[in-house]
Parts: sequence; structure tokens; C-alpha cells
Amino acid sequence: MNKEQLFNQIKLKKSFLCIGLDSDNSKIPSHLQYANDPVFEFNKQIIEATHHLAVAYKPNLAFYEANGIKGWNSLERTAQFIKSNYPELFLIADAKRGDIGNTSDMYARAFFQNMPFDAVTLSPYMGFDTIQPFLHHKDKWAIVLALTSNSSAVDFQTNCKNQSNDMLWQQVLFTSKDWASTDQLMYVVGATKAEWLRKVREIVPDHFLLVPGIGAQGGSLKEVAINGMNKQCGLLVNSSRGIIFASNGLDFASKACEEALLVQTEMAGYLEDFGLLSDQA
Amino acid sequence: MNKEQLFNQIKLKKSFLCIGLDSDNSKIPSHLQYANDPVFEFNKQIIEATHHLAVAYKPNLAFYEANGIKGWNSLERTAQFIKSNYPELFLIADAKRGDIGNTSDMYARAFFQNMPFDAVTLSPYMGFDTIQPFLHHKDKWAIVLALTSNSSAVDFQTNCKNQSNDMLWQQVLFTSKDWASTDQLMYVVGATKAEWLRKVREIVPDHFLLVPGIGAQGGSLKEVAINGMNKQCGLLVNSSRGIIFASNGLDFASKACEEALLVQTEMAGYLEDFGLLSDQA
Repeated sequence: MNKEQLFNQIKLKKSFLCIGLDSDNSKIPSHLQYANDPVFEFNKQIIEATHHLAVAYKPNLAFYEANGIKGWNSLERTAQFIKSNYPELFLIADAKRGDIGNTSDMYARAFFQNMPFDAVTLSPYMGFDTIQPFLHHKDKWAIVLALTSNSSAVDFQTNCKNQSNDMLWQQVLFTSKDWASTDQLMYVVGATKAEWLRKVREIVPDHFLLVPGIGAQGGSLKEVAINGMNKQCGLLVNSSRGIIFASNGLDFASKACEEALLVQTEMAGYLEDFGLLSDQA
Repeated sequence: MNKEQLFNQIKLKKSFLCIGLDSDNSKIPSHLQYANDPVFEFNKQIIEATHHLAVAYKPNLAFYEANGIKGWNSLERTAQFIKSNYPELFLIADAKRGDIGNTSDMYARAFFQNMPFDAVTLSPYMGFDTIQPFLHHKDKWAIVLALTSNSSAVDFQTNCKNQSNDMLWQQVLFTSKDWASTDQLMYVVGATKAEWLRKVREIVPDHFLLVPGIGAQGGSLKEVAINGMNKQCGLLVNSSRGIIFASNGLDFASKACEEALLVQTEMAGYLEDFGLLSDQA
């Protein structure tokens, strides 16, 4: 999927919502625990209930690896289920990998060939070698960590400043923005730093940004939209726990749908305000 | 395993060799391709042929994830095989993970509870949150990337300098060295930067260092020993392809043993030179 196709999906659904499938086995409703594969069954019902409101889904690999082989199986089934039933959805492996050439090749194969992911999140610490092998796959994306939403992001991302007073995350953007076109390169920028999105946009005006941190982590969707939106939207805003664990009862899927609808409705308003839906009128 | 126990193993085996199990399925000898699980069979024979010469083994997760569920199964079997047969070996998951609190918890569970790894390699980009959950596991280690051996390590690790002219990798050491004791915290420092090991030792004189980059990547073991060794050795030097793919014929395991013996013999000499074997005399 390229940037234009992603923007078309956003306009069609009036949504730039990414739903994070942080499907922690211990938080899945008890009535699903009797299923053969509770995590997959949970994901499947969440996706069926919300796919019309979201443009992207993002399983976080840790929650699958924690269950070993069984978890890896749930991940593969989830990815296949999404692409078989809703091929228009943008599928992100939130893996935060980062290794050198021949090893990155292997990760790219795991996510882009063996599984039908469109994108993988990557740590920039080891430099371009980390990113390059992912770019060899047509229409696939590298999503590079820039400014994350966790409290200790300050340790290096903001505390490490160069002689020009640029913070590390800014240096990451300056250095990496020409490594690939905006059809293959995206950045992670946390919503809890919404006031900094304006600074991000000064460096990468045209790139898509994957924005975690609204919902359970407390970021404001409005601030993200005001400071981060560009003429092709340029945002995928993620919510995980706030949607998928809205209820842990029999109604978990319909409650997830209700929560996703609230977010999507707010998003539709911002897309309208920014005049991005005009050609859909 | 704590630092003292690791040093005791080093003295006992006169070796600080870590063998990297970068067991790329496409490079495994053809006669093993008929086994039920060729990667596990390969690893098993490599380990049986070399375990007396190495103190550590380090599967790189990418090579297992590239094979999906089957690969994850090979990884679990390899880890179990090592700890069942050679519990004294130090087992490193070369995963280069790096995510925030609740997610890192999941990764720690995957490697330390579901599998018997002693250590996991981690990227420092997201700060202390990334490392902390791993430290809650007694006698388990976080191995933090500092200065890696790949060519694009310059992009950020050395090119990003602060007002005091400290490079990013130095700032990582300064900031993180007190996050945990030297019984739980280790650093990755590439052998291809052996002349910088002296600078590393100025900041972290007592920490163990995991040093990749000798062998196929061209680093010098002698330079590493001269510049990096401390009074408890403080080094685990990794070789992957140079040992495990020394031959791709029927003799692959015995050839791996020969290569490992060459490295171990050289290591024994340095340990002797530095007077670290005296209490074994």
C-alpha cells in the first residue's frame, strides 16, 4: 500500500484510527478462555466489530511472543485473517526491531513474506543498516521510532542534544528523512508530546506519523490533529487498551465498537475541519 | 547467573567465547534438511561439538522468526536443550528489543520465564523504561546496545555529539551504568571499534561487555583483549558465521569445533597473559 492508497482509505472511512492489538492473554474476557486459541478469537471479534471504523491494526509483538509458539500462531492467524477478509486495512507489526543488514533481511522476510504485514516499527539506534532491508520490499513500510510516548523517552531522545541544540529525535528525523520516499517511511511520534508535533512537521512535513499515546496514555486527539495533520492527513493515531479492553464481559466487541466509534467520529470532524473530505462530497 | 559465576566459568574453560547461533536455514548443510527440525538438529550438533570451548551461546532471534512458528519452535528447543544438558552455559537471546514498561514485561516473560535465557539484548533508544522490567528477574541480565559493529552505527551512535563532545554511545553508558548492578547489566560494544574499547572502559570499568564483530566482521581478538579486558575478564566475545558455518558438509560440527578451538586457544593465552588464571594453577 502506498501513501495515496492509505489517504484514500482515510477519506473513505473518515478515520485515521489504528487499533492496537495489545492482546494480553490475561486480560481477555474469561468466556473466550475456552476457545482453542483465545487470543485469535478475541482479535477476530474485535476486528469484525471495528474494521469499518479503523484504517489500520497494530499487533504489538511482545504480547504474542509472551505466549511462545502458541502466541506466534495467534499472530500469524490474526494477520492472515485481516488480509483475507479486509485487504484494504493497513497492517503494522509493532516489533521495534533494529539489527544489522543480514539480520534485518530475516526480519523483513518474517513480516513481509511469511506474514502479510504492510509495515514494521524499527528502532533507529543502529542507523541506516537497520532500515534498508525493509525498503527492498515494494509497497512495504519502515516506521522509525522518533519521539516515543513513554516517560523515559527523555533519557536519550530529548536529553541528548548536539551543538546546534537539536535533540536526538530531531537528529533522527534530519538524518533519516531521505533514506526512503514518503511512500515507504513513516515515524513514531507520541501523542503525549503533541506540542512537539509542530516541530516534527517542520522537519518532515509530508511523512505519515504513527501516533501512539491517546487513550490509556493520556494524549489529546485534538492536539494531535491540530499540530500534526498535513494535506494528506499524514496521521495514523493509535489506541490500544482504551478500545480493545473497553469491557471484559460478553459485550467486549460491541463496547470496543462503541469506543472506536467515538474516536472515529471525532476524527471525521477534524478531517472535515481541515477540508480533507471535500472531494468525497 | 551472576558476574562471579560467569567469571568462574571463564576461568574453568579458559575461554570467553560466545558462539552466535545465527542458524540461517538456507546455509545449513543439505544432509540436515531431511531432519524433522533442521535448525534444531544443526544447533544441537554444533553445541555438542563446541560446548567445552564456549561459555555462552547467542541465538539471534531474526533467524528463527524468519521461519515463523517452526522457527520459534527451533528456538525454544535449542534453549531447552542447552539448559537441560549444559546448565552452566550463559544463554543470550539476541533480540535487540526495546519497548515500554508493560510491553517489556511481556518480552521479559517470553525470554526469562517461558524460555530459560539468562540475558536479552536491548536497544536503549526508549530509555530506562525499556530496561527496567528485565531487571525484576533475579540473576537475569539486560545487555544494552552501546557501540555496535555495523557501518551505519556512525549515523547516530557516533555522529550525535552533545555540547561536551560526548558521542551518543558514551551518553548511553554515562546515563545507564547505574540503572542496575554489574551483576545484571552488560553492554554490546563492537570489536570493529577495538580502539574505542579503552574509552568504554573509562566509563564502565567493571561491566561485562558482549563483543560481536570478530571473525566474519573482521575485528581483532587481540585488540579486544588488550583494550577491553578487566580483572574479571569482563568480556564475552562472539563469533557466529566463522564458527558455525566453517563447513557446510558432513563435517560441519567437527570443523566448527576446530574453529572454536583456535579462538579458545588464543583466548586462553590472553587470560594467562593478564594473570586471570593464576588461582586455577
